[in-house]
Amino acid sequence: MSDLTDRVRGPLAPSTASQWPLNVDDVEIQGGPFGRWQQINREASIPLGLEQMEKSGAAPNLRLAAGESGGAFKGYRFQDSDLYKQLEAVAWEHCRLPGDGYRAFIEESAALLARAQRPDGYLNSHYQVVKQDKIFAELEYSHEMYCAGHLIQAAVAAARAGCGEDLLAVARRFADLLVQRFLTDGDDGIDGHAEVETALVELYRLTGERSYLELAGKLVDNRGRGLIASTGMGPLYAQDHLPVREAGTAVGHAVRQLYLEAGVVDVAVETGDTTLLDSSIRRWEDLVATKTSITGGHGSRHDGEAFGERYELPPDRAYNESCAAIASIHWNWRLLLATGHGRYADLIERTLYNAFAASTSADGIRFFYVNPLQRRADLFEDAYLGRRREWFACACCPPNIMRLVSSLGHYVATTDDEGVSVHQYVPGVIRAGDVTLEVETDYPWDGRVRFTVRSAPGGEWTLKLRVPAWSASGQEAPDGYARIRRDWQAGDTHTLDLDLTPRIVRPHRRIDALRGCAAIERGPLVYCFEQIDQDGDLEDLALVPGAAPRVVERDLPGLGRTVLIEADAVRLPPSTPQDLPYTAGEQDPAGTPATATAVPYYQWDNRDGGVMRVWMPLA
Amino acid sequence: MSDLTDRVRGPLAPSTASQWPLNVDDVEIQGGPFGRWQQINREASIPLGLEQMEKSGAAPNLRLAAGESGGAFKGYRFQDSDLYKQLEAVAWEHCRLPGDGYRAFIEESAALLARAQRPDGYLNSHYQVVKQDKIFAELEYSHEMYCAGHLIQAAVAAARAGCGEDLLAVARRFADLLVQRFLTDGDDGIDGHAEVETALVELYRLTGERSYLELAGKLVDNRGRGLIASTGMGPLYAQDHLPVREAGTAVGHAVRQLYLEAGVVDVAVETGDTTLLDSSIRRWEDLVATKTSITGGHGSRHDGEAFGERYELPPDRAYNESCAAIASIHWNWRLLLATGHGRYADLIERTLYNAFAASTSADGIRFFYVNPLQRRADLFEDAYLGRRREWFACACCPPNIMRLVSSLGHYVATTDDEGVSVHQYVPGVIRAGDVTLEVETDYPWDGRVRFTVRSAPGGEWTLKLRVPAWSASGQEAPDGYARIRRDWQAGDTHTLDLDLTPRIVRPHRRIDALRGCAAIERGPLVYCFEQIDQDGDLEDLALVPGAAPRVVERDLPGLGRTVLIEADAVRLPPSTPQDLPYTAGEQDPAGTPATATAVPYYQWDNRDGGVMRVWMPLA
Repeated sequence: MSDLTDRVRGPLAPSTASQWPLNVDDVEIQGGPFGRWQQINREASIPLGLEQMEKSGAAPNLRLAAGESGGAFKGYRFQDSDLYKQLEAVAWEHCRLPGDGYRAFIEESAALLARAQRPDGYLNSHYQVVKQDKIFAELEYSHEMYCAGHLIQAAVAAARAGCGEDLLAVARRFADLLVQRFLTDGDDGIDGHAEVETALVELYRLTGERSYLELAGKLVDNRGRGLIASTGMGPLYAQDHLPVREAGTAVGHAVRQLYLEAGVVDVAVETGDTTLLDSSIRRWEDLVATKTSITGGHGSRHDGEAFGERYELPPDRAYNESCAAIASIHWNWRLLLATGHGRYADLIERTLYNAFAASTSADGIRFFYVNPLQRRADLFEDAYLGRRREWFACACCPPNIMRLVSSLGHYVATTDDEGVSVHQYVPGVIRAGDVTLEVETDYPWDGRVRFTVRSAPGGEWTLKLRVPAWSASGQEAPDGYARIRRDWQAGDTHTLDLDLTPRIVRPHRRIDALRGCAAIERGPLVYCFEQIDQDGDLEDLALVPGAAPRVVERDLPGLGRTVLIEADAVRLPPSTPQDLPYTAGEQDPAGTPATATAVPYYQWDNRDGGVMRVWMPLA
Repeated sequence: MSDLTDRVRGPLAPSTASQWPLNVDDVEIQGGPFGRWQQINREASIPLGLEQMEKSGAAPNLRLAAGESGGAFKGYRFQDSDLYKQLEAVAWEHCRLPGDGYRAFIEESAALLARAQRPDGYLNSHYQVVKQDKIFAELEYSHEMYCAGHLIQAAVAAARAGCGEDLLAVARRFADLLVQRFLTDGDDGIDGHAEVETALVELYRLTGERSYLELAGKLVDNRGRGLIASTGMGPLYAQDHLPVREAGTAVGHAVRQLYLEAGVVDVAVETGDTTLLDSSIRRWEDLVATKTSITGGHGSRHDGEAFGERYELPPDRAYNESCAAIASIHWNWRLLLATGHGRYADLIERTLYNAFAASTSADGIRFFYVNPLQRRADLFEDAYLGRRREWFACACCPPNIMRLVSSLGHYVATTDDEGVSVHQYVPGVIRAGDVTLEVETDYPWDGRVRFTVRSAPGGEWTLKLRVPAWSASGQEAPDGYARIRRDWQAGDTHTLDLDLTPRIVRPHRRIDALRGCAAIERGPLVYCFEQIDQDGDLEDLALVPGAAPRVVERDLPGLGRTVLIEADAVRLPPSTPQDLPYTAGEQDPAGTPATATAVPYYQWDNRDGGVMRVWMPLA
C-alpha cells in the first residue's frame, strides 16, 4: 500500500494535479443548504438506505451467494451496487463525523462480502445465484465490472476513512481477478456500463499497484471498437460507436458516458496522456454548449436514458437522471483538479444547487430518478415519474446521492503552489494544510462571503476565490478566480461580494423546445414556478420581458425560510381547446397584469405536487 | 355466410350506418398523389413486400410450424402478422384491378396456413415453433390475438375480393377457437395489443356469426380492469388503466389505443350501444384538440411508442408511427360512417396527405416507421430513425401501408338516404349504386373539383361535398358538407372551388414545444422546409410574420412537378456555441431579408436526407 493512504481522505487522490483536493473532513460545512442536507442525509436518508439494503434484496442476495440462506434472488443484476454505494456513503459519513454503527455496518458488510466472494475473487450475487454459466459471458449488459467498480470505490472510501481494511481486501481480490482475465490473459471484454475505469484508477492511487491503472487504460481505449456485443440499443447507447479519442460529442446513456469521462480523465492524468485529456475536454465543451439543461442536468431522452442531439433540450421530457448529475460532478471535479479552470467549478456549482439538489425531498426520504424542468397537470401523468419516491426497483440514485452528500466537503476547496483555492461557498471551516479559514456566509441567499484566516504559515500565499461566470462583479478573475496574495496573518479577513440580482435568462435560439421562454436565476440557483404559489392557473401566465424581478423572503411549509422571486407577468385568458390546436392567423391574446412567483428549483415538489415550470413563456 | 358478402367489397361493412361505404373497386382513382401512389404500390411496394415475406421469415416460420422444413424461427412473435397484412394488401389489389399472381399468392398462402394450423384451429408460428408451453399463457405480450385479428382481416378481404374461401376457412377455425376459449369457456384473457376486436366484428359482419361480435364486445369491455398481466410498461401502455367507457383521453402505445377505438366503434355500432360510441367520440375530441400533430400523426413519445400528455407535441421527437396514422384512419372512417360528420373525413384527409403519405418514399420502396416533424443535422442521429428504410426487423408498417393504399377507393365516397357524399377529392370515377360520377381535378395542387354525372336514377337526390374546415369558402356546410339537391341528369355538372391560398398556421399556446413558430399549409397539405431548397443554413432562417407566402410550381428530381411555397424570411447571423446556451439579457439578433422555400411534407426525405422542419421560428 502506498503512502497515499495516509495523506488523503477523500474520493479522489490524483498523483499529479493542478489543484490538490482536501480531505472530506478538512471542510466542515456548518449551515446553508448543504449543511442542512448533510444533516438530513445523516439523520434520514442514510437510515432509510440502510433499511433498504435488507428490503430491496441487496444484502439478502449476498447471503444467498454465500450459501447462508435460501430464497430467490431479488432485483436487478446490478443489485449489489446499491450496497456498495451505501457503503461508500457510510464510509464518508464516518470520515466526516464518526457515528454509531457506521464502522460496524462496514465491517459486517465486508465480512458478508468476503463470505459471498468466490475463492478466485469473483463477486456478483446475481451471477453467482442465478446465472453461474453466464459469468463474464454477457458483459454487454451484465454490469459485473460496473458492480466491481462500485465495490472498489466503497473499499477505497472505507480504507481512506480508516474503517475498511477487510472491504479493501475483498475489492482487491476482485480487482486482481479482473486484471488477470482482462489484462494478463488478454480477454478484450468491456462492460456495457462504464464505471470500473475510474474505480480502478483510484485503487491504483490507493495501492500503487500499476496493473489497475493499466487495465483502466485498456478498457478506456478499447471502447468504441465494436467489442461490446449488441444489446438491441445500438452502439451509441454504451459509447461503443467510436474510440473515445475520436468521439466529439456525448451520446447514448448519459450516466455511462459521464462515468466513462471520469475514467478517461483519471487515466489521462495518471499516464500524462494529454491527447486523451484533450478529447474529454473537447466533449465537455460540446456538451456544455449544446446538451446541458440550465439546471446542469444531462440526458434529454427517456428512451435509452440518453443524450439527445445538439440543442435537443426539452423541459418536459428532460431525463436528467440524478445519477447523471452525480457523474457530471465527478467528471468536472477531475477536470478542475487537472486544469485548475473555474469553468468546471462553475458547472459543479450549477449542478449541485439545481439538478443534484432537486433529487431529494426537503425531508431526505424521497428521491427523484428523473429531474424534468416542467411538470404538467395531466390526469395520466405517470406516477412513477411524477413525484419523488421513497425507493425504486432500480435504485441506483438514492445511495449515489447519499455518497456524494456525505463527501461534499471534498469538493469545496483545493490547494496549489500558490495557496488555497475556494470553489464552493459554504459557511464553516476549511483546513488546507497549514491554513485554516473560517467562512461566514448566508450564500446562496446572500452574496457576501467573509473569509477569516484562523491560522496560516508564514510568508505570502494566494487566496483564490472563484468568481462565477454568472456574477456581474466585473473583477479580474483569470481562469475564473480572483487572486488575493498577501502575507496572511491569523485574524486577517477578506470579503467577496457576489451580485445576486435576479437574472432573466434566455435560451440559445437553437434550443427549439425553449423558444419564446425565459427562466429566472439568482446566484447559483435556477428558479421554478409552482402552481401552489400562483393566483390562478400557472399555464395562463406569461412573463413580461424586461421587467426586473423582485426578491421576497418567506417561510414556506416544509421548506422553512426561503428566498422567492416575484416577476411581472400577464395573465392570459384561459385557453380553450380547439378542434385542432393549429389555427391560421391566430393572434396572441391580450392579458391582464399579474405576478408570477418562483421558488428555487431544488425545492420543488415539496408541497402540492402540481404543475411546475422552469421556463415560462414571454408575453 | 350472410348475404353481406355479395353486397360489399371493402374493409368495412357495418349493418347499420349513417353513411354506407362503397366497394374498393367502385372508385377508380385516375391520378393525383393517390393515383400515383396506388400505381407505385402495385409496381414497387407490393413486389418488395412479397419478396420480404420470404426474407423476413414470415413464410418460412409457417413452414416450420407446418413441419415442412427445418431451421430456426426468425423475427418477432408477431411475425405472422406481416404476412396477414401483405395478404390483405394483395386481396384489395386483386379487387381493385386483378393481376397476375395475386390469386395464386393468396391461395398458396392459405394452403400453407391451413397446413400450419393446428387441428384445434390455433395458428401462430412463433408459439407453435418456439414456445408451445406458453400458448395463450402470456397474452400481455404474446400478440396471439393481434395476429389472429390480422389473419381475420386478410381473410375477410380475400373473401370480399372473391379470392379467398380457403383463407376464410383458416381464419374462422382460429376465430372459433378464440370464441370457444375466451367466450364460451369463460377465459377472461385479453391481448395486450388491441386489434382482434375490430377484426372479429368484421368477421361477424361477413358471416353473420354473432359469437364473434360477442367476443369482441367482451374484449372491449374487459380491458381496463387489470386483467392484463404486467409487462413492466405500466397499465397505460395497453390501455388497461380504466374501462374504455370511463377513459377520457388516449394513453399509452398509440397503435394499440387507435386499433382499440376502431373495435370500440364497431362493437358500439353493431350493438346499438350509444354510451360506448359516445365514449370513443369523447376521446376523439380530446385527442384531436390536444394530442394530434399538424400532420395528423399520433404518439409523442419514442418511449413506449406512446401518446404523451395533453399538448405534449414535440416536433423533433414526435413518434407518429406510420401504423398509428393507419389506425387513426380506420377509427375516423368508422366514426364517419356512424355519424356522417365531416370532421372525421377532415382528419382522414389531413392524415392521408401528411402523416400517412410521408411514410413512403416517392419510389415506393422505402418506408418510415417514425414520422417526426423535424430532423436535425446531428452527426449522431440514429440512422435507424433518420431516413426511410427498405424494411424493418419489426416490419409492422410497410405491409400495413400497402393494404391501405390498395383499398383507398373505399374511403372516397359513401351513400345515404339523401344521395351520394364525396369525402375525398380524387380524379376518376365514383360508382355509387345507380349513380356514376366523374371527378375531374388537379387536387390538391388546384382547388377546383368538377363533378359530372354520368348516370343517375330518376328523381331528386343530394350530392354532398365535404367542405374542409381549412377552406375559407364560407359556403353553408352543415356537419361539414355542402349539399346540392337536384333531379340530376346524365351530363349535369357541378364545380366545387376550394380556396388553396397558403395558410400560415400558429400552434395553440399550450403546445410548449412549438412556441414562437409557424407552419405553412395549403389545402390539405402541410408543408416543410428542407435544407436542400434553401440558400444557406436552414437553422438560421426565421419566417416573417404576416407576409403572404407565394406558390411556385417546379420540377424536383425524383418528385416530378410539385407545388412549392416561398415565404418571406430573415436570415439570422450563424449561431455561435456559448459556454452554456442560456444567457441573461440576450437580444434576438437582427437578420437580413431572405426567402424560405417549402415542399409538401409528404415529399420530404426524397432528396438529400438533410435538415427538415415543419415548424419554423417566427422572426
